[in-house]
Amino acid sequence: MKAEKGKTVVGFAGLGVMGQSMAGHILDAGYDLLVYNRTKEKAKNLIERGAVWKDDPRSLAEGSDVVITMVGYPADVEQVYLGKGGLLEGARPGAVLIDMTTSSPGLAVKIAEAARAKGVDVLDAPVSGGDRGAREATLSIMVGGDEKVFNDMAPLFNIMGKGIVLQGGPGSGQHTKMSNQIAIASGMMGVCEAVVYAKKAGLDPDRVLSSISAGAAGSWSLSNLAPRMLKGDFAPGFFVKHLIKDMKIALEEARAMGMETPGLARTLELYEELAALGYENDGTQALYRLYDK
Amino acid sequence: MKAEKGKTVVGFAGLGVMGQSMAGHILDAGYDLLVYNRTKEKAKNLIERGAVWKDDPRSLAEGSDVVITMVGYPADVEQVYLGKGGLLEGARPGAVLIDMTTSSPGLAVKIAEAARAKGVDVLDAPVSGGDRGAREATLSIMVGGDEKVFNDMAPLFNIMGKGIVLQGGPGSGQHTKMSNQIAIASGMMGVCEAVVYAKKAGLDPDRVLSSISAGAAGSWSLSNLAPRMLKGDFAPGFFVKHLIKDMKIALEEARAMGMETPGLARTLELYEELAALGYENDGTQALYRLYDK
Repeated sequence: MKAEKGKTVVGFAGLGVMGQSMAGHILDAGYDLLVYNRTKEKAKNLIERGAVWKDDPRSLAEGSDVVITMVGYPADVEQVYLGKGGLLEGARPGAVLIDMTTSSPGLAVKIAEAARAKGVDVLDAPVSGGDRGAREATLSIMVGGDEKVFNDMAPLFNIMGKGIVLQGGPGSGQHTKMSNQIAIASGMMGVCEAVVYAKKAGLDPDRVLSSISAGAAGSWSLSNLAPRMLKGDFAPGFFVKHLIKDMKIALEEARAMGMETPGLARTLELYEELAALGYENDGTQALYRLYDK
Repeated sequence: MKAEKGKTVVGFAGLGVMGQSMAGHILDAGYDLLVYNRTKEKAKNLIERGAVWKDDPRSLAEGSDVVITMVGYPADVEQVYLGKGGLLEGARPGAVLIDMTTSSPGLAVKIAEAARAKGVDVLDAPVSGGDRGAREATLSIMVGGDEKVFNDMAPLFNIMGKGIVLQGGPGSGQHTKMSNQIAIASGMMGVCEAVVYAKKAGLDPDRVLSSISAGAAGSWSLSNLAPRMLKGDFAPGFFVKHLIKDMKIALEEARAMGMETPGLARTLELYEELAALGYENDGTQALYRLYDK
């Protein structure tokens, strides 16, 4: 069943900052929208715009052709899909469930298998691009699952993002997101160390950035986060606690493949030190705090 | 004295791959060029095009208004500037010596002080952009030294590069280059780990790159070196042995400032392991070899 506005009923579970933007775009595109969230308060705005509230994941799935989830941690994903009163209890044969949470690839496979037994299709489709990507509908979406289901869901993905790529079977979207987070992790150490080195050497760090950002040292983090570090702006684009979650999943998966990841392992240690100091709700650029002392 | 073609005689010492391109541009721009290199053979092409050979750094400096050096290691820089038969023995009062080698900030200060005692001006002006930047005259040039001298030498810098920035007093160019190399170092761990993770997870790594290169994980290394890693192309743009040299200088300087650089320290260990396996003349993307096994 190809997603189609006016026909397909979409359920959305998980109305955090990103989920609210994403669900809002689907509503604006003309789809009937059902919503569920742990805290009903956060659904208020969408309900006022026409979304219909459901009391639990099961009843959300019962009323929906497609359910999209954007929750917090793998434990939340497991609860929402496989727990008592969860999506799989309510999903009708032929329904499609799409998890856009960044979560464990292994769990994505487990959910896909449990769903298949009930005639339900599942895609794992984590995103990158943060709040802003969600708000501006420019998220990069990395998808794992069946090709036909992916194509059927393309109209919905296109409402939320750009750069939508099917990476392979179940779990492949999550693995791709892990690859993304692994590249970000060590890169952040490099950016912090480069900026603090420049400062301690008595240079003007902003002028140093003007020399190094456009060349071989250049990165998204250097261009976008280093200037915030230097201003002492640690407001979250992306939370420290969420990067820690992602790095833990990635490290566990890498170990299961017998792969050593010294950069990732060291970065995770540093971020855990940062969280222990009380900065888990800062943005990831706050790693700078550990160095600039 | 402002550099001016047809008037200013330029000496160039160090005719490796980059030095040859840079000296060639100066010749093509209409300057009189004297050259010196440890191996005369490498000067042949420039001599055929009109450059005049000199037998040692001292006689190079005796005949030049400006001398540019592009040699290998800090020990070579020290020898060429301060050693017996070196540049400072031959340089005339009012001459300008420009070291474009990536070398130690402390040594740059030492040379600047020794030169000042003789009425000679020195700039440290390391570059980034590699062979290709040298060939296409698009090098980024990070300069330390006196502002008037920097302005006087601008016509020469403009012949070799773009993005030419005076970063501060003597040693500031080298410190800026160290900041650049520090950002590159940890970033390379991240790129290798991300790519090998994707491969081991059974994904198509090129397709993964298409999802992650344009977003928050994006970097020059991910866009330019990850595809070479995947093709098994380890030919040097920038040599492993030279990055090791740079990282050692940076680590020593950071320690002298009382700064911890866990990412840099770990990356240096990995590159030393790689060099010990015999890959010191590969390009820096060969770090991938350690992971892909």
